[in-house]
Amino acid sequence: MAKPRILIVGGVAGGASCAARARRLSEAAEIIIFDRGQFVSFANCGLPYYVGSVIADEKKLLVANSDLFKQRFNIEVRLQHEVTAIDRAAQTLTVKNLQTGELKQEPYDALVLSPGAAPIRPPLPGIERPGIFALRTIPDSRRIREWIDTHQVKRAVVVGGGFIGLEMAENLVHRGIAVTLIEKLPQVMPPFDPEMMTPVHVHLRDQGLQLCLNDGVQGFTVGSEDNLLVQTDSGEQHPADMVILAIGVRPENTLAKEAGLKLGDRGGIRVNAAMQTSDPHIWAVGDAVEVQDFVTQEWTLIPLAGPANRQGRIAAETILGRDSQFRGVQGTSVCGIFGMTVACTGASEKTLRRVGMDYRKVYLHPGHHAGYFPGAQPIDIKLLYAPADGRILGAQAVGREGTEKRVDVLAMAIQAGMTVFDLEEAELCYAPQFGAAKDPVNMAGMIAANALRGDAPIVYWEDLDLAQVNLVDVREESEFERGHVAGAINVPLSQLRQRMGDLPGDRPLWIYCQVGQRGYFATRTLRQSGFDAYNLTGGFKTYEASTGA
Amino acid sequence: MAKPRILIVGGVAGGASCAARARRLSEAAEIIIFDRGQFVSFANCGLPYYVGSVIADEKKLLVANSDLFKQRFNIEVRLQHEVTAIDRAAQTLTVKNLQTGELKQEPYDALVLSPGAAPIRPPLPGIERPGIFALRTIPDSRRIREWIDTHQVKRAVVVGGGFIGLEMAENLVHRGIAVTLIEKLPQVMPPFDPEMMTPVHVHLRDQGLQLCLNDGVQGFTVGSEDNLLVQTDSGEQHPADMVILAIGVRPENTLAKEAGLKLGDRGGIRVNAAMQTSDPHIWAVGDAVEVQDFVTQEWTLIPLAGPANRQGRIAAETILGRDSQFRGVQGTSVCGIFGMTVACTGASEKTLRRVGMDYRKVYLHPGHHAGYFPGAQPIDIKLLYAPADGRILGAQAVGREGTEKRVDVLAMAIQAGMTVFDLEEAELCYAPQFGAAKDPVNMAGMIAANALRGDAPIVYWEDLDLAQVNLVDVREESEFERGHVAGAINVPLSQLRQRMGDLPGDRPLWIYCQVGQRGYFATRTLRQSGFDAYNLTGGFKTYEASTGA
Repeated sequence: MAKPRILIVGGVAGGASCAARARRLSEAAEIIIFDRGQFVSFANCGLPYYVGSVIADEKKLLVANSDLFKQRFNIEVRLQHEVTAIDRAAQTLTVKNLQTGELKQEPYDALVLSPGAAPIRPPLPGIERPGIFALRTIPDSRRIREWIDTHQVKRAVVVGGGFIGLEMAENLVHRGIAVTLIEKLPQVMPPFDPEMMTPVHVHLRDQGLQLCLNDGVQGFTVGSEDNLLVQTDSGEQHPADMVILAIGVRPENTLAKEAGLKLGDRGGIRVNAAMQTSDPHIWAVGDAVEVQDFVTQEWTLIPLAGPANRQGRIAAETILGRDSQFRGVQGTSVCGIFGMTVACTGASEKTLRRVGMDYRKVYLHPGHHAGYFPGAQPIDIKLLYAPADGRILGAQAVGREGTEKRVDVLAMAIQAGMTVFDLEEAELCYAPQFGAAKDPVNMAGMIAANALRGDAPIVYWEDLDLAQVNLVDVREESEFERGHVAGAINVPLSQLRQRMGDLPGDRPLWIYCQVGQRGYFATRTLRQSGFDAYNLTGGFKTYEASTGA
Repeated sequence: MAKPRILIVGGVAGGASCAARARRLSEAAEIIIFDRGQFVSFANCGLPYYVGSVIADEKKLLVANSDLFKQRFNIEVRLQHEVTAIDRAAQTLTVKNLQTGELKQEPYDALVLSPGAAPIRPPLPGIERPGIFALRTIPDSRRIREWIDTHQVKRAVVVGGGFIGLEMAENLVHRGIAVTLIEKLPQVMPPFDPEMMTPVHVHLRDQGLQLCLNDGVQGFTVGSEDNLLVQTDSGEQHPADMVILAIGVRPENTLAKEAGLKLGDRGGIRVNAAMQTSDPHIWAVGDAVEVQDFVTQEWTLIPLAGPANRQGRIAAETILGRDSQFRGVQGTSVCGIFGMTVACTGASEKTLRRVGMDYRKVYLHPGHHAGYFPGAQPIDIKLLYAPADGRILGAQAVGREGTEKRVDVLAMAIQAGMTVFDLEEAELCYAPQFGAAKDPVNMAGMIAANALRGDAPIVYWEDLDLAQVNLVDVREESEFERGHVAGAINVPLSQLRQRMGDLPGDRPLWIYCQVGQRGYFATRTLRQSGFDAYNLTGGFKTYEASTGA
């Protein structure tokens, strides 16, 4: 194709990236973006912050506009044009001009579907009442802002505790609104394992948020003050001047489905590594496609902007004859939550269990920089790795500064197929205000590697059975007195060598301290002295997180 | 050796790590640390901040003390004990108790040398005058603090613009002292390439620092007010109430040299990957040893705490029969400079030239997070890579938040042998306040990969010859008018397709914009239209940095 006609359905993230990349590869191509909305290439990740007025100017959200596409890339953008059908045999689209109602046939050499995903709006009683919003587009955010202003919103209910739900909660609180967050799962942020979210739950409540976990919404009624009442499974009713639905998105697959393109089990458009659908003239990218999980190789839906952009590039490249391949998605993501940062990459423990992959895990709670420099704050880290070879499978981190940095480093390690033994040797930036001579990433690697080598075997709190093992708390007496695990005996590390005679030798010894380090030292000493000792990873801090709410 | 006697000379970083690791591997070993100083395992990276009272309490600097070593690790620490000789044949040390003068012979099975490095004090006239300090130990920092207080220091000269020099300058300014920094090179921070330090020089001067580059110290005299006068090569004399010498360190090799151990060309103790010296019973770690550069394979001296700790671990492991191997040093490092952050990893361009390794480079100036979120600040990034396969050789970054994060990510990439093509596909954390859908690391990879694939060949400002090429500025007219490179013609990208006829086709076209992105778009368009176009990497911003001071 010397002058291919490339039509793109959807002009945000993947679609816009695809268009721009296609132009860079071919001046000759005719490239047209159709979008049924009013904006192309806007920053949907910024919408909650626009609602919160953190981003004050709506124009900031417009990464590019139609003029820029025309001028800079010679790409035509047709806004408020909805593609209503694909004729695969004829290689044409039916496009409806939403302003005039006019229908037009548009021939293509290559078609790229980037329709995105739509917020899920479950058919609950009362869901169509005014004041119940989802957030996906600039007009959505305008409507929410307008409602807040005109109704002087004081109380809001956010349904769903994922990325958007938490970002919305933060931004509404930022605007002085009292927020109730309702989440059906026992935790916020589903990509994370539940015990990692315990400090986030505490933090959310510390911010004045009313956090209702393990509860689902049954419907919406109207209260006496003409406000909304959100009815939940548990029988609660939460008054609200506004409701934000943030319970997830579903891939926009209608067009693909009607055209008979292959879909995956989760409803996303199925593509190969070239981002090509089951029709060799049609590509698909972004939130509407199923992607292969980089770690588990499962087909999954991971609506993230970074992968969408990369997919758009790859689609453009393969359309124009290159042999680029998409590597799959690791699910690297981050969310700021009232000053806290939560970030993850790769597979969670939940996922590894579900798919039946063998894994081991460590927890640690290092400071984000050297402890001797003022202001060090702990990061809770969970690292998942393969017992066979130490390959890193996933990582989760919760803290403040420096949190997503460690996850980015571990994301690279996963991408490169590195092991926990490589993490031991990682050479990262260290100055007192930035890190530590042994960075948290090194520490994670060392703990895991020590366990894999058999030097300091690790055990998990959820496996603790006091009928089978003796539990030893090696913290100092004062720490023990402030709180400990029922059934533990206290032999401080500092007295361990002298008091080994006090330790029962009849059963395995499960050792813990506050965060795991002294437990490690004790485990080494005890194993060398003939005891069958194991270290409870993450120490008392992980115990509290695992049993907390 | 069932109960080896392991003696360690020097109890900071490498020595302390080695001792602790040895104990974890062997309860039976006898482990003794000798240190001629008063402290073991202190945080020397914190000393400038203790001088600056950022770290208020000296005790914070003591990571561990002798009691803790005894109690927790059953390791004996003998402070103020200087090892004066090694008898390799007899496997004994001569140890002098500095308090009593007593000499004692100590037999060893394994000896670990971790003597560190000493600040260089060149034999300049007047260097022994009071008020001239180097900073390496806690007593050094005490002496400096005391001098500041008792002499009410108002003006200080710092000699040397490396890590310690800049950290000291910042901390002295923090204490209200006017600082003059004298550096012999035309740049601060020698591990970086000079053009990367231009914004740092501007920033230092903005902080009120008197920065004297390209100037060396000739000597020290006394001024009329009984203060010091620092005489320089350029004929300047700088009055000072105090002088800090921070011109680097030399490995403490006396003991090793006198024992006939093999030294390297740069004066460091030569070791193998097991951290073993030329004597199989003697190991050496830390700032006193020469290490192999991970990228260039050169033997070099890189005094950093992270590698020292890792070396200590590895020495302990190999002493106790494991086959651990040190991988070499990448030189990953970071320095905070009055709120700016500079970080680097791998080889610099200077180094690659010196050793004759083939390389290519890109510059970019992305925001540290999405531009639509308030507060985005640019990071200047330089990426060096091999033209043959795209392997990453080195990276440098200068900015504020998020700067060392990108270097850490790139450090992992170097460690894993990744290429610029891998950086294109890296999946990193993105939310508006943390990054971008195309992270700066992705961008660096894309620019380099586009160049390597021949899509958008890159050229360098230092190679610009207006007799050979036509220079085209594709920024908007208003930007061009605010400043441009002499000899450039201005054809804004937005008009490029219409005005291609204006462009001379007689010579190669070298294109630039502000930071390189529009130049890239223009280069692609022009090459596809038959022009021999090249993009000047880093754009006008890199031009200004390369020609600035």
